[in-house]
Amino acid sequence: MDLKALHKKHVLTPWVAQKPLDPPLVVRGEGVWLWDQGGRRYLDLSSGLVAVNLGHAHPKVAQAIGEQAATLAYAAPSLFHDKRALLAQALSEIAPWPEGARVFFTPSGTEANEDAIKFVRHLTGRFKILAAYRSFHGATMGSAALTGENRRWPAEPAMPGVVHFFAPYPYRSPFYTEDPKEEVKRALDHLERVLLHEDPKRVAAIFLEPVVGSNGVIVYPEGYLEGVRAICDRYGILLVFDEVMTGFGRVGAAFAAERFGVVPDLITFAKGVTSAYVPLGGVLVREGLAQAFDETPLPTGHTYAGHPLAVAAGLAALRAYQEEGLFERARRMEPFFREALSALLAHPWVGEVRGLGAFYGVELVQDRETKEPLSPWHAPFSPPMQALLKALFAEGVYLLAKHNLLVVAPPLTITEEEFLEGVERLGRALRRVEAEVVR
Amino acid sequence: MDLKALHKKHVLTPWVAQKPLDPPLVVRGEGVWLWDQGGRRYLDLSSGLVAVNLGHAHPKVAQAIGEQAATLAYAAPSLFHDKRALLAQALSEIAPWPEGARVFFTPSGTEANEDAIKFVRHLTGRFKILAAYRSFHGATMGSAALTGENRRWPAEPAMPGVVHFFAPYPYRSPFYTEDPKEEVKRALDHLERVLLHEDPKRVAAIFLEPVVGSNGVIVYPEGYLEGVRAICDRYGILLVFDEVMTGFGRVGAAFAAERFGVVPDLITFAKGVTSAYVPLGGVLVREGLAQAFDETPLPTGHTYAGHPLAVAAGLAALRAYQEEGLFERARRMEPFFREALSALLAHPWVGEVRGLGAFYGVELVQDRETKEPLSPWHAPFSPPMQALLKALFAEGVYLLAKHNLLVVAPPLTITEEEFLEGVERLGRALRRVEAEVVR
Ligand SMILES: Cc1ncc(COP(=O)(O)O)c(C=O)c1O
Ligand SMILES: Cc1ncc(COP(=O)(O)O)c(C=O)c1O
Repeated sequence: MDLKALHKKHVLTPWVAQKPLDPPLVVRGEGVWLWDQGGRRYLDLSSGLVAVNLGHAHPKVAQAIGEQAATLAYAAPSLFHDKRALLAQALSEIAPWPEGARVFFTPSGTEANEDAIKFVRHLTGRFKILAAYRSFHGATMGSAALTGENRRWPAEPAMPGVVHFFAPYPYRSPFYTEDPKEEVKRALDHLERVLLHEDPKRVAAIFLEPVVGSNGVIVYPEGYLEGVRAICDRYGILLVFDEVMTGFGRVGAAFAAERFGVVPDLITFAKGVTSAYVPLGGVLVREGLAQAFDETPLPTGHTYAGHPLAVAAGLAALRAYQEEGLFERARRMEPFFREALSALLAHPWVGEVRGLGAFYGVELVQDRETKEPLSPWHAPFSPPMQALLKALFAEGVYLLAKHNLLVVAPPLTITEEEFLEGVERLGRALRRVEAEVVR
Repeated sequence: MDLKALHKKHVLTPWVAQKPLDPPLVVRGEGVWLWDQGGRRYLDLSSGLVAVNLGHAHPKVAQAIGEQAATLAYAAPSLFHDKRALLAQALSEIAPWPEGARVFFTPSGTEANEDAIKFVRHLTGRFKILAAYRSFHGATMGSAALTGENRRWPAEPAMPGVVHFFAPYPYRSPFYTEDPKEEVKRALDHLERVLLHEDPKRVAAIFLEPVVGSNGVIVYPEGYLEGVRAICDRYGILLVFDEVMTGFGRVGAAFAAERFGVVPDLITFAKGVTSAYVPLGGVLVREGLAQAFDETPLPTGHTYAGHPLAVAAGLAALRAYQEEGLFERARRMEPFFREALSALLAHPWVGEVRGLGAFYGVELVQDRETKEPLSPWHAPFSPPMQALLKALFAEGVYLLAKHNLLVVAPPLTITEEEFLEGVERLGRALRRVEAEVVR
């Protein structure tokens, strides 16, 4: 049986109906490119799921993985391990706390958020948690409860105690303004109103993606994150940045916390930490809070917590990021990326291109005036969106799409030529489908 | 700074208070042995957390991991992937369903159970789930809710809708009998009573470890699993076996379902699937149920779902298990393991040794008559238990301990000599501490 048929026969694919599936079957990668079994290549414009920040098959990381597999792939997390200590130290060095930090390692981003929920409840003795609408924090029952979009719904009723609020979204303001300053002011007022109706003394933490990821690549207008931090301080609420998508160079710094100069109490991470080469996630806890677990048992655990192969990959990935200066490179290339992407605004379907670092969202609309989405939110892809995704594969581009959003988040190693090539292919796919649909 | 101090400074360890920690720092493994940085070696009598079923640094699996890392470590789960298809096929072949099966891959055991919860709710349109006391299903909010012991408590209130029942435990019967037949009869009657008080038509599934793992290595007396299956059939309830610990040869068969000839509707797995070399878990869904997702979106997803490096490790591990006949070997060696462990009954603290395949529990008591546990349940280790764990490290043995239980679950590759050596070391540690404490 051919491999694609075998895949359909035996593998269940996330979030979608299985029958219509017909993506390429990839077998090899190198840098920004993926190859399918027939030898066709695809430009990976989203680094997988905004994760492969080093590009595919980075030789040093691959070698470190091979060596660790031959030395010690796994040991129980109750034993200490050399590379686990070294990666935790390295992460605490790039974290934004002068007081230092400790790390709890997990297998994934959702488990990092789950554990962070337990930590903030334990640390504050409070129960409720606030999270934003238009957020994704994971698919397990705690993180799904935090999630502010339709991927939460099939988990409901999930974990109790989560309250959602609206955060700024300038392109479609939930606060009835087009002025970014006013957007921030109203958003903070709204957040504080929600808090006061929930009783701030019952709220353990606010969980926030410092740049909204798969729900829009929304960069909050200046002053919002600072304002949230100030509200947290006012009420003794912990601030958790979910940096699963924004961490490890995506926004042109180790963490968004650094990029924006706003310091949370905990940071959850995954994806880029190993460039996704080995499943790994974790929670960074600032030292002053972590000490609570010196005498009291830590309230969580996982078989793969601090997995030796995963931490070895993390250590090698972090060294590669640093040796190649990739976090700074993403920052430096920001004007180039922006400029290149602005070419897409020539397409009638492109409503807005926004983002920073190596992290951009292209929001597609049927009509620039009404801003009617090209594909409705919280529903399967519309026929034009489906046609576009097909055309992208035909043009040799893979990227992450959600509702009416295309996420352009290439490996941080991408060259200018490769990026221009990607934008070109994206433009061709748009042109082709716009023509078909308009006809 | 030395690595142990660095580990304590920056790594948070699961489930325990951090300050007293002083385990070996391991840097290398081979077969059943682990080495610390000073070159001392430890016999890994629990395969990590009952996971490294192939032993450490299996050359073929290590090589497959190195090769896959150099080829394609990661690709988005929305793309198809060669090894993912092949592993899913291979797993469906060792699964107990003639109709075939599909696999949803996850990064861990707890995420497998989380997803299984979503699947059974979707498949039945029902909400409640039954799970056993004295069970562990994971640490995230859904699996923690299923969990029937103190590792659930710090997650509470977690996911609503779970009801716990008592399952057989012959050594300390919750059903007031010493006759195994009567134990089974009463346990099934109890389960049905609970169901009738909950309304069977509201119950989506029963989740069960087919052999209780970290809560006792309890092999259910004959007839219990069959009886649970019959009850499920009677009320249209799905049966989910959590085979995270029992799968991949631990009980002397691919799955406990095969060993006991009782067929569930879904199987969750993790750990042994890659011999824990790369984080991987998943849900096996029998084909007749999986078809529900042909037209309806699958209600879950993870960045690392079907992770290429992980599935490549799984494929290599499965080939190694099969080439070396390790599942059958664990079955064949059962009488030897039992006989060797029975020597421990000479120790006054050893209340019972039980188990099957390569999976044994040693329950420690202060007094064989009263069966008073050597360390209280649901509390930190008692001083004698602490002394024993220290003595085990001193004797060069690592094993998983929980409350008053030692889990003896070596790699399936262990030789008779190595196993006897392990039992000898375990006996020496017991003797040493018994003498100290009695004095
Ligand atoms: C911001 C954010 N948080 C959490 C997650 C969940 O991570 P994982 O898929 O590893 O569970 C994601 C995944 O895309 C994410 O984007
Ligand atoms: C029976 C069982 N189910 C689920 C789990 C959770 O698996 P993980 O630690 O990979 O989340 C475990 C872990 O020990 C287990 O023993």
